[in-house]
Amino acid sequence: MSALVQKHKEQPQLDWEVKNLASVLRVDEAHAVMLAEQGLITESQAGAILGVIDQLKAAGPSKFASKPGYGSIVLQIERVLATHIGEDTAGRLSIARSRLDQGATVRRVADRDSALEVAHRLTELLATLADVAERHKDVPTISYTHLQQAQPANFGHYLLAFEDRLEDAFDQLTQVYDRIDRCPLGAVGLSGTNLPTNRHRTASLLGFSQILDNSRRGRDAYYQIEMACTLAMIMTILNDLCTDLHVFSSTEFGVVEIDDCHCGTSSIFPQKKNPFALEIVKKVAQDAAGWVATALATFRNEGTGDTANRSLGILGDACNKTSAMLQLTSEILNLMVVNRSRCEALLKNTWVTTNFLANTLLLNHGVSYRTAHGVVARLVKNSLENRISRADVTIEMLQAAAEQMGVTGLGMSEQELRAALDPAEYIQQSSSFGSVGPEQVKRLLTSSRQKVVANCLWVESKERHLESADAELREVTEKLRVHKRV
Amino acid sequence: MSALVQKHKEQPQLDWEVKNLASVLRVDEAHAVMLAEQGLITESQAGAILGVIDQLKAAGPSKFASKPGYGSIVLQIERVLATHIGEDTAGRLSIARSRLDQGATVRRVADRDSALEVAHRLTELLATLADVAERHKDVPTISYTHLQQAQPANFGHYLLAFEDRLEDAFDQLTQVYDRIDRCPLGAVGLSGTNLPTNRHRTASLLGFSQILDNSRRGRDAYYQIEMACTLAMIMTILNDLCTDLHVFSSTEFGVVEIDDCHCGTSSIFPQKKNPFALEIVKKVAQDAAGWVATALATFRNEGTGDTANRSLGILGDACNKTSAMLQLTSEILNLMVVNRSRCEALLKNTWVTTNFLANTLLLNHGVSYRTAHGVVARLVKNSLENRISRADVTIEMLQAAAEQMGVTGLGMSEQELRAALDPAEYIQQSSSFGSVGPEQVKRLLTSSRQKVVANCLWVESKERHLESADAELREVTEKLRVHKRV
Amino acid sequence: MSALVQKHKEQPQLDWEVKNLASVLRVDEAHAVMLAEQGLITESQAGAILGVIDQLKAAGPSKFASKPGYGSIVLQIERVLATHIGEDTAGRLSIARSRLDQGATVRRVADRDSALEVAHRLTELLATLADVAERHKDVPTISYTHLQQAQPANFGHYLLAFEDRLEDAFDQLTQVYDRIDRCPLGAVGLSGTNLPTNRHRTASLLGFSQILDNSRRGRDAYYQIEMACTLAMIMTILNDLCTDLHVFSSTEFGVVEIDDCHCGTSSIFPQKKNPFALEIVKKVAQDAAGWVATALATFRNEGTGDTANRSLGILGDACNKTSAMLQLTSEILNLMVVNRSRCEALLKNTWVTTNFLANTLLLNHGVSYRTAHGVVARLVKNSLENRISRADVTIEMLQAAAEQMGVTGLGMSEQELRAALDPAEYIQQSSSFGSVGPEQVKRLLTSSRQKVVANCLWVESKERHLESADAELREVTEKLRVHKRV
Amino acid sequence: MSALVQKHKEQPQLDWEVKNLASVLRVDEAHAVMLAEQGLITESQAGAILGVIDQLKAAGPSKFASKPGYGSIVLQIERVLATHIGEDTAGRLSIARSRLDQGATVRRVADRDSALEVAHRLTELLATLADVAERHKDVPTISYTHLQQAQPANFGHYLLAFEDRLEDAFDQLTQVYDRIDRCPLGAVGLSGTNLPTNRHRTASLLGFSQILDNSRRGRDAYYQIEMACTLAMIMTILNDLCTDLHVFSSTEFGVVEIDDCHCGTSSIFPQKKNPFALEIVKKVAQDAAGWVATALATFRNEGTGDTANRSLGILGDACNKTSAMLQLTSEILNLMVVNRSRCEALLKNTWVTTNFLANTLLLNHGVSYRTAHGVVARLVKNSLENRISRADVTIEMLQAAAEQMGVTGLGMSEQELRAALDPAEYIQQSSSFGSVGPEQVKRLLTSSRQKVVANCLWVESKERHLESADAELREVTEKLRVHKRV
Repeated sequence: MSALVQKHKEQPQLDWEVKNLASVLRVDEAHAVMLAEQGLITESQAGAILGVIDQLKAAGPSKFASKPGYGSIVLQIERVLATHIGEDTAGRLSIARSRLDQGATVRRVADRDSALEVAHRLTELLATLADVAERHKDVPTISYTHLQQAQPANFGHYLLAFEDRLEDAFDQLTQVYDRIDRCPLGAVGLSGTNLPTNRHRTASLLGFSQILDNSRRGRDAYYQIEMACTLAMIMTILNDLCTDLHVFSSTEFGVVEIDDCHCGTSSIFPQKKNPFALEIVKKVAQDAAGWVATALATFRNEGTGDTANRSLGILGDACNKTSAMLQLTSEILNLMVVNRSRCEALLKNTWVTTNFLANTLLLNHGVSYRTAHGVVARLVKNSLENRISRADVTIEMLQAAAEQMGVTGLGMSEQELRAALDPAEYIQQSSSFGSVGPEQVKRLLTSSRQKVVANCLWVESKERHLESADAELREVTEKLRVHKRV
Repeated sequence: MSALVQKHKEQPQLDWEVKNLASVLRVDEAHAVMLAEQGLITESQAGAILGVIDQLKAAGPSKFASKPGYGSIVLQIERVLATHIGEDTAGRLSIARSRLDQGATVRRVADRDSALEVAHRLTELLATLADVAERHKDVPTISYTHLQQAQPANFGHYLLAFEDRLEDAFDQLTQVYDRIDRCPLGAVGLSGTNLPTNRHRTASLLGFSQILDNSRRGRDAYYQIEMACTLAMIMTILNDLCTDLHVFSSTEFGVVEIDDCHCGTSSIFPQKKNPFALEIVKKVAQDAAGWVATALATFRNEGTGDTANRSLGILGDACNKTSAMLQLTSEILNLMVVNRSRCEALLKNTWVTTNFLANTLLLNHGVSYRTAHGVVARLVKNSLENRISRADVTIEMLQAAAEQMGVTGLGMSEQELRAALDPAEYIQQSSSFGSVGPEQVKRLLTSSRQKVVANCLWVESKERHLESADAELREVTEKLRVHKRV
Repeated sequence: MSALVQKHKEQPQLDWEVKNLASVLRVDEAHAVMLAEQGLITESQAGAILGVIDQLKAAGPSKFASKPGYGSIVLQIERVLATHIGEDTAGRLSIARSRLDQGATVRRVADRDSALEVAHRLTELLATLADVAERHKDVPTISYTHLQQAQPANFGHYLLAFEDRLEDAFDQLTQVYDRIDRCPLGAVGLSGTNLPTNRHRTASLLGFSQILDNSRRGRDAYYQIEMACTLAMIMTILNDLCTDLHVFSSTEFGVVEIDDCHCGTSSIFPQKKNPFALEIVKKVAQDAAGWVATALATFRNEGTGDTANRSLGILGDACNKTSAMLQLTSEILNLMVVNRSRCEALLKNTWVTTNFLANTLLLNHGVSYRTAHGVVARLVKNSLENRISRADVTIEMLQAAAEQMGVTGLGMSEQELRAALDPAEYIQQSSSFGSVGPEQVKRLLTSSRQKVVANCLWVESKERHLESADAELREVTEKLRVHKRV
Repeated sequence: MSALVQKHKEQPQLDWEVKNLASVLRVDEAHAVMLAEQGLITESQAGAILGVIDQLKAAGPSKFASKPGYGSIVLQIERVLATHIGEDTAGRLSIARSRLDQGATVRRVADRDSALEVAHRLTELLATLADVAERHKDVPTISYTHLQQAQPANFGHYLLAFEDRLEDAFDQLTQVYDRIDRCPLGAVGLSGTNLPTNRHRTASLLGFSQILDNSRRGRDAYYQIEMACTLAMIMTILNDLCTDLHVFSSTEFGVVEIDDCHCGTSSIFPQKKNPFALEIVKKVAQDAAGWVATALATFRNEGTGDTANRSLGILGDACNKTSAMLQLTSEILNLMVVNRSRCEALLKNTWVTTNFLANTLLLNHGVSYRTAHGVVARLVKNSLENRISRADVTIEMLQAAAEQMGVTGLGMSEQELRAALDPAEYIQQSSSFGSVGPEQVKRLLTSSRQKVVANCLWVESKERHLESADAELREVTEKLRVHKRV
């Protein structure tokens, strides 16, 4: 074999398999058990095979002596088995199985574990978001559209929006999980076999909820596109959050302060505090933009015959990075300081309550909608021109603006005007479903807490299902190994 | 306003809105009804507004006289309303609503319709795949891995694998649908309002199953990433199918023939028959590779404040193209001829039954696994060197190969050898779950039929839900319009 | 032919060709001339053909009566010719030409024109950047890294960096242009012909600088990947600029103000001024992220045999959008106001001169590098803790900080300290090559002006080359048409 | 610092820098020399610094003892220097330099080396393509469009088309190289410095051809987008070639045979020979589809202030993989067997000479173009229906077809017909510029050889330029080190 083929295909693939040796051996165990139960090998042969596998498991990847140039993990393990129990028995592990379905099963076991790890970290971040939202549920802030100040808002409410976005990503992840969680073992190439196998048994021993039925689908991994997209979705949302925080932590905004342990200093600018942690998250989000493009390219070849290229090499790394970024974002949020006084100062000088004032004119004083907005727009314009801050606006100024727009006899009091322009009042009175008002924030918090509990239950139920399958596999292999020793 | 801003932003947006005028007006109706029911406008004002909207609906987009440079559809409609019922009443339609949640609601109504159309076309293709699979359930064929001949297979079984892949895409689509199917109306910017609105009522009148709760999420459209990915997934699978068919329809393969109505002729090569229809599908799949990249880029900006750029302009076109390609693929499959005699000729000259022979040596004649494969590999090698075709292999040749590998005394009969090398026998005996054997193909067909029925029911239930909401909206607006006439 | 194939392939392709009728007819003219000159058709036949083509040119695309379902533009034109001059003569235009090289030539003519248009608009923006940089060559500002205030800077210098980045993009564009500017006409399918053609003549008449030599490359369009990347590069740089301006135009930064004609107002927030024009540019940059992904997907198929799919449908639109965004950015820059007093206010309260002070300690007062930075960092820390602004720092405070770091006997004067902390001084003294100091800015301006002149000359030389080829084509066709009339 | 920040940012960055220690130290040396020459440090200080650097160079990356958590390579080296020559002297290496320009310079040095390595491997492949084309310059073959047989062709001519495509990629690479080959050292952050530095000197000592002038561009790396695109272009072309070879090496085509050392065998299908090497190249091309998407995402952030994220982490790996794939493709081509007899057999049974026959009818027998094509199309149709192979077509059959199309009195001889249908004749007579005829193939070969020579010269000239700069750097540092020892 060409050294370049060895270096760029055989070796990296074998390295991946050795790294995932535990999964490889689990698949071997389940297959050996099934073969014995179906009478395709004897119990004694099964016991011999399982005995060696048990030693390999105990020794772990670091002790696995693969022989370069000898081929895939299947052949490497067969070689080890042959040394211990003879070539004849060793070879029988390949009965009713091909490299295609064996490899696809290992991949799904590994991808399933990765997905579960992401779900776990995501649940932690969701809980953190709820906690931090609770902590800042009384902090007033400004919302932005087009990066311009738009409305009074609430920092807890703001964080809960991210919690809710990531809840959607969590649901998406569980739905992909269901499509990963199918056992291809026993597809035997693309056509199946005439031997009396029991695919339901191996699936069950490996903790799969379903069988990948049609044998031609055995090595399908289209779910990796979806998985890449779900990870990219998570990173998109984290990127949005961290980009907001990055802008908010500039000197000019000054709304949040990222903890020192998440910042770096400049080698030559002693005054700087660079929010590195935010940039790390955003950097992974940049990479994430390439994940789906690579995934889609991976699944566009000369059609289904071009099997070797149908696996997304970067997926494991993408899962690990996403998991780590979920962790890091939790940490950032937990330690970040929200500068309440700066928020209040910004609100003091802002005109973001103007539509509240326009509504008041419309509903309490019979000014038509467009006219009311016109009056208020004029008031803002006049004030900016005369450098009058919002807090200093008087009822006379409003009346003057109204008259300029042809509205006379406004019956509004100074107090009413002051209330209509007050951000605190605005927030306090917001009562529509899902709005920034205190009652709604409280309700949204409760709802978030409930979802987080449900997520935890989902993760635990999947973990328990895998553990229980593993326990059964251990039990039945133990029996067969004992048989051998007798 | 700059002519360039008008041309590259205002006009295209308004064009889109006028094209989707029906959805825009439905949202207006539901909002007007709710305002009246909550006492935020009078029944008489509502009736006046609904009367004009009714006329606009009847006239349709082609008659809608938008005024260039005047602003978005909201302002255009307000202008029309003002002409008919005065500025004061006209303006009241904007109470408790902003451009943000209005636009987001129209977008979700439109995207929901598009998703349903794709689901409908996908269901049709799934039914076609089951039909065509049934038609070819007895056609033997070869499966390929690495584009090399691998195993005997079955054409119906092959098509059912695609049916099953697209079933996954269907499930994915229904799951995205659930995340689209949420009403943002009433979010009022990002912060909600102090007015006594009823968001559940507008959601219900517009046929939404859920409310998009947190007001800051009102204009969220992250689901468009998922939607783009689901469409790209569908196109990926269609691309695989059409690429297979493209290779299969080359002169050298000759396995299928694409109908003349899907082929073009060359302007200078009179002998050519170019399978254009396959290339159309593949071309859209090329574009699809860009959809998710564009979607992910669309949702990576300066954070959540950068609202204007958070909508995927290409989504409507992507939906339309995917729908059309689903239709076209159905048509291709329905008219395509599978060349059974060519399949049989290919199988006759192929060695794809060798692992069947190896299995026979192992299980019936006690040859160890690797040795059995070695014997068979040697037999193939000898035959190729001596230009002996598979059909002409004799038991003596097998014995000679066995002896070369150190195996003597093979007790296999000529008849057994012949059966072990026969592709038809191979297929007939395949009995493992999901394999190419006739019983399994029959079972897979039944299972596919059942899924198609379930898909149809899902599509119908969603359509009926929307129709019933629409009926209620018509009824209640009718009442209010009557009120006005009184 | 299937209606779907007609709708999704034939019609759009024909529409594109009719839209580019001028290019199609130019290619026909050049080919007819060459055929006559080589004796492959008679001068009289050529004259007859050219006469009809002349009428089609005069009538233009809007008058071209294509017949749906009849095939590509080649067959459509042949049909028109046959009506006027008989089928025999009409058919002879296809001698020594195939659809492949004809189509590829039209595509290159169109792409060449588009590239030239982009180069033209780019040159305009480069000139604008130099102008606006000159206008603001004395405006002090702050540079940011990690979105944190870093150093004193100069607004003209800042704009010149963009000018220089876009100069690179201009060079890139001219290099792609050279790879577009090759004539495939006469490749005749993929293999050439035995007829005595003259490819150099047609290339020259069509204004191509080179011939695409190897006939198998005739329909190659790999350059479209490069072109897509160059357009994406331009949009990346415009995106950077507009994103900066977007952040700078927030209330919190307040450094620039975008002209009203590039802003929109909110329908319900009367105070808002949303910088729409910046968002338009950024939106196209989002789309641009998909251009190269689509291009790369377009050129990944079943190898070179899969010809139909090797053309990037979106390229024309990408060129048009990029051209428009170059125009819009020029407009934005020309009308934008830079808020000098805000810049000065920001500089007043900032610590961005600290490394200047550290350098002074190192070079004039023998404090080691790290210690100097430590002293300054301590000074900043102390000042922030005691809410002392930069302008109020005294020499005693510096000495105190120095002592805290173990440095005693600092011989710095109050005046020296004040100068070392002054941003204006910092800028004034910056003298290193390419720095923000006034002499360097002046030099950079001159250098930019020179490059812009060179760009203009390049664009003009290409335009003149095309015009001169066109003149020759007109002259020679005129002669042949006259011949016919005689 | 947070352990996650350390793990996901600091450590990987430091690892990269240590791996590129040679480049880091070269930049340090050049900077130290310049500081001494400009009098910013003493010669003795420079000598001391260079002495330690010399030791670090000699020891290499594996001996470099970096201290985790201590910061970037700049601080790590300063720490080592301080141990040997005291903190005061050690710190002075940072005079007139910042982390920004130091890092950017190291990156450009590394990227320049990678680009040169790719150019070197590309040149090797270009030479191989010319060699292998020469070897097969007499092998007739079929060209395909739409994956359907189109025309007689020539295998050498086919390979020369790839040679020519890759020549374009070579040119592209040299043009990117020029944009990499600029020295940012001395930009000092984004604003430059007041110290009397000499940027031209450091640039020259580091072998850069130009200076990156405007200091704000110091850390620019937009060229990485272009570089990613150029690598993706190379991989696109290799993918096309290897995809062709993959299809050609299927049993059904059988045109080429990939050498055993580039194929794998199946674990359970003894007859299979899977062309793994082709799949490796195609797999990298899949990844390449993600490179530009990631690059474009990397350069889309909050504008230029967001510096930390403006470097493409995957670029080094992309260069290495592309280099390796260029090598592997050379190897594949060198060892691949082209099955000449299979090519001839395919040509024997094909109708790809029909347009040659039509041309003969048109030019020698006065049949109009469309009619000639109609006659030939009818002849093909009749023959296929009556299962008459091309070789058995008689003049009577042609006459019958002609009469069916209304053409009588065809004066063609049997011999003329036979010649017109003969692929060998077709190829022999192809004489148009760039066509498959023997004279043209010979000319194209010569032209390729000349280009390869020019490429070699380019690579060598760049290598020599770098070596000579390195020699000067060694000489001048040697002098300063000696000074120190005195």
